[in-house]
Amino acid sequence: MAKTDIQIAREAKKKPIQEVGQKLGIPSEHLLPFGHDKAKVSADFIQSVQDRPDGNLILVTAINPTPAGEGKTTTTVGLGDGLNAIGKKAAICIREASLGPNFGMKGGAAGGGYAQIVPMEDMNLHFTGDFHAITTAHNLLSAMIDNHIYWGNELGIDQRRIAWRRVIDMNDRALRQITSSLGGVSNGFPAEAGFDITVASEVMAILCLANDLKDLEKRLGDMIVAYRRDRSPVYCRDIKADGAMTVLLKDAMQPNLVQTLENNPAFVHGGPFANIAHGCNTVMATKTALKLADYVVTEAGFGADLGAEKFFDIKCRKAGIAPKAVVLVATVRAMKMNGGVKKDNLGQENVDAVKKGCENLGRHIENLAKFGVPCVVGINHFVTDTDAEVQAVKDYCSSKGVEAVLNKHWADGSKGITEMAQKVVDLVEGGKANYKPLYPDEMGLFEKIETIAKEIYRADKVVADKKIKDQLKAWEDDGYGKLPICIAKTQYSFTTDPNWRGAPTGFEIPVREVRLSAGAGFVVAICGEIMTMPGLPKKPASEVIRLNDQGEIEGLF
Amino acid sequence: MAKTDIQIAREAKKKPIQEVGQKLGIPSEHLLPFGHDKAKVSADFIQSVQDRPDGNLILVTAINPTPAGEGKTTTTVGLGDGLNAIGKKAAICIREASLGPNFGMKGGAAGGGYAQIVPMEDMNLHFTGDFHAITTAHNLLSAMIDNHIYWGNELGIDQRRIAWRRVIDMNDRALRQITSSLGGVSNGFPAEAGFDITVASEVMAILCLANDLKDLEKRLGDMIVAYRRDRSPVYCRDIKADGAMTVLLKDAMQPNLVQTLENNPAFVHGGPFANIAHGCNTVMATKTALKLADYVVTEAGFGADLGAEKFFDIKCRKAGIAPKAVVLVATVRAMKMNGGVKKDNLGQENVDAVKKGCENLGRHIENLAKFGVPCVVGINHFVTDTDAEVQAVKDYCSSKGVEAVLNKHWADGSKGITEMAQKVVDLVEGGKANYKPLYPDEMGLFEKIETIAKEIYRADKVVADKKIKDQLKAWEDDGYGKLPICIAKTQYSFTTDPNWRGAPTGFEIPVREVRLSAGAGFVVAICGEIMTMPGLPKKPASEVIRLNDQGEIEGLF
Repeated sequence: MAKTDIQIAREAKKKPIQEVGQKLGIPSEHLLPFGHDKAKVSADFIQSVQDRPDGNLILVTAINPTPAGEGKTTTTVGLGDGLNAIGKKAAICIREASLGPNFGMKGGAAGGGYAQIVPMEDMNLHFTGDFHAITTAHNLLSAMIDNHIYWGNELGIDQRRIAWRRVIDMNDRALRQITSSLGGVSNGFPAEAGFDITVASEVMAILCLANDLKDLEKRLGDMIVAYRRDRSPVYCRDIKADGAMTVLLKDAMQPNLVQTLENNPAFVHGGPFANIAHGCNTVMATKTALKLADYVVTEAGFGADLGAEKFFDIKCRKAGIAPKAVVLVATVRAMKMNGGVKKDNLGQENVDAVKKGCENLGRHIENLAKFGVPCVVGINHFVTDTDAEVQAVKDYCSSKGVEAVLNKHWADGSKGITEMAQKVVDLVEGGKANYKPLYPDEMGLFEKIETIAKEIYRADKVVADKKIKDQLKAWEDDGYGKLPICIAKTQYSFTTDPNWRGAPTGFEIPVREVRLSAGAGFVVAICGEIMTMPGLPKKPASEVIRLNDQGEIEGLF
Repeated sequence: MAKTDIQIAREAKKKPIQEVGQKLGIPSEHLLPFGHDKAKVSADFIQSVQDRPDGNLILVTAINPTPAGEGKTTTTVGLGDGLNAIGKKAAICIREASLGPNFGMKGGAAGGGYAQIVPMEDMNLHFTGDFHAITTAHNLLSAMIDNHIYWGNELGIDQRRIAWRRVIDMNDRALRQITSSLGGVSNGFPAEAGFDITVASEVMAILCLANDLKDLEKRLGDMIVAYRRDRSPVYCRDIKADGAMTVLLKDAMQPNLVQTLENNPAFVHGGPFANIAHGCNTVMATKTALKLADYVVTEAGFGADLGAEKFFDIKCRKAGIAPKAVVLVATVRAMKMNGGVKKDNLGQENVDAVKKGCENLGRHIENLAKFGVPCVVGINHFVTDTDAEVQAVKDYCSSKGVEAVLNKHWADGSKGITEMAQKVVDLVEGGKANYKPLYPDEMGLFEKIETIAKEIYRADKVVADKKIKDQLKAWEDDGYGKLPICIAKTQYSFTTDPNWRGAPTGFEIPVREVRLSAGAGFVVAICGEIMTMPGLPKKPASEVIRLNDQGEIEGLF
């Protein structure tokens, strides 16, 4: 029987993190260790390498996800190992896992099979404490807002218009909507309030987009936390919380270094939601990796329609970085699902369904071309895939003018992905990349939404109430018109209907709500229902998670 | 001008934590580093030293605290350094600081002057994440309770009788009393709820009293989280949260090692409230230190009437440890305040007031004798103290049959406290210690409260409603009768009136409420108002906390 991810991870021959850091030239004194297998890279060291040239950034993205699994993170990790295997100095950048959801469903591994990042247990629990720091900084601001009102409300906050909820890194539906400050005078003024999960915090988005501590503090100060009766905004800066929040986030801003099963360096840092936020690891980690490695492989959340678009239009635009190549991950199984095959029948060869399902892949290929970066398709191999099915995908890609490579990193580690690694190097060295965002800063906010919906999703039109359009106009008048758009939408379809697979046409994108993340620096357009505080399932994983007699964690994976 | 604590701390010549660990014979591979100046001692190493004999435990306690300051922690740290200075292998054990309150009032240093533990900044912020782990474990249980009810409530929990609140490490009065699960069917059943500060969590008390991970898991399972309509208890074990909580607390159970300014080892681990809990650092840290050092200096929260009593009757009784000597800390200034001098006049010599104030000291001396452990009084020197005043305290102590030593560790570090260190060694080597708890396990719960109130506080009687007495009786019937008592009362007086200094007589102790901490293993008797969720002041410290241009933290100290 094949080994499970956790079995493989536990058999990993981890090197001391100092040795992993040495591969990138990080001196031991600049690696702040957390145990023997995790470390933060010191801010001082990062400062000292700013004059170096950047390495080559590679984005790994995917088709619309299906329950069949695409293996985007697995490909990211495998490609990092593969690039190292063919003699390149490569590093990986991915997001941190959110702790709360691991106690609902089984915890997420960082990769899978023989393409994993370790230590898996720590990464699914407290890791280096970054998310706890974010939770604390966020809730300090909440406490300070209510405290300001309690002591006289000099700023004239309209308590009905507090725009700042609380956060907790836990799936706890009971906290979605609460009334706070009950119990009398000494507890403040009763108010409606609520909690989101920590990854939904604007502080998380800011930590992931900030260039340094000064930038972090400025962005925190820019956050809008409430409005007055005259609708004028009250900023975090007005509450005087930005300094203390920065102090709380000082260590969290330093990127975390861990390793792959093959002892190659991996930065795992930050984890914003991919719906109401941009869904990428920190700019700090990506930029640091680019200074230290020749190749940096990173990924973006969800499918390419949401994840890659936000990566290009928010992260790259704001951070001044640009990938040299994109790897678009697909699987034969997911093609079959997109082609109409039910989950139970995925094990049977069905070349026609694969061909039909390639429509979804094809649209992502077309979309990625709009950002000016060359693309290669990575077929993440499953044992049930037949040669004819794989060839059908390759042929389809060929007809679209891109190459497709079959990757077996899951089963074989770096040995299974050297062809792809070489292809990526060829693409980079071909020098064809010419990154451009989808829309200019100067375009109006609603037009930006329309541009994404029409160019990427292929919707006929965007539908929004006058109230929403007025709000966008008001933000433009207030000087927020140059911000990029962050679409919050189902990841499973180009449309807002999660069950509409393939390459749909003839649909509209309704915008239900818009939110201004003034500190993070984007306008969120919510299209459909977005849950910012999950609940636990009937049988949560936490009921079976425990330490066994060997002191190992059971039930988390 | 004298240097501030933070200036002194920043000038510390810290050694790598591995070198500090070497002093105690901890191999590097068993020190799990957090940065270069903090580490956790591995559970495996702790297991490996269990057969070693124990060193000598020294308790540092104090008179009833006054705004003049006693310097209990400063003396603890100074004595640890002093014992090392006279050639003993000594370690220190103190509690961790709670993060939340540091953003209200100025953060607490660990010691002061030249008797400090470093790194001070980290210890006042996230440190090694123990409190975040406790917060998370606690709130996972909260989420699982509500989730159980949401999915059908098989256990038949009476939602009006949920005994498990939530916690957050933040001063946030708005969360003291809330209604949760508002907003419709998918958010659960609306209910009254609320948050305490993390240090008030029973999980914190359990972490501090547990002997190992197995014991931790058992105690967590024993916690009562709710009652059914028939008043029968529902345990954490019934909710099946104990295993996952243990996993979340696995790393937090390992003691944290840091160092004094003189590079001597200090364990800083755990931080339960000293009112509704027992107020001492973890049993894990104390027991580990006793295996590794010849002398272990520790302290207990509040004055000796609350702190030392709980240390003896809860921690020592349950952990099977016993101090060989007690240092009772007093100051000339605090004696003057107890003798009736106003705070503004403390700088003027007043020998009569000192003599009068010694009554408070005297009662603590008498009380400590009841636990069978020899005592020495440590006079913590202030520059305004006159020789005549110091002599008055010494003479008074002499009349009570104990010695008093003037300590100048604040100004001079270990050099200022060598006489005391030698005195402690003499006391230990004298072999007079014969620890006994104040009351036997078998005594009834109400009688135990009476015993503490009469023997320690010198109250005439304990006053409690029939309802409270019935509750205590019911717990005895349920098998909880052998638990010790944890009194929650003002720390400023032997009475329940914080302004009644000195050595009062002729008063009653009213018991307002009793609570069962079935997992921690004690019954809390609440005498007076106890706040388990602080609020922020009008001008919270967080408004001025920030990073300066040198990257140093301002405003936290």
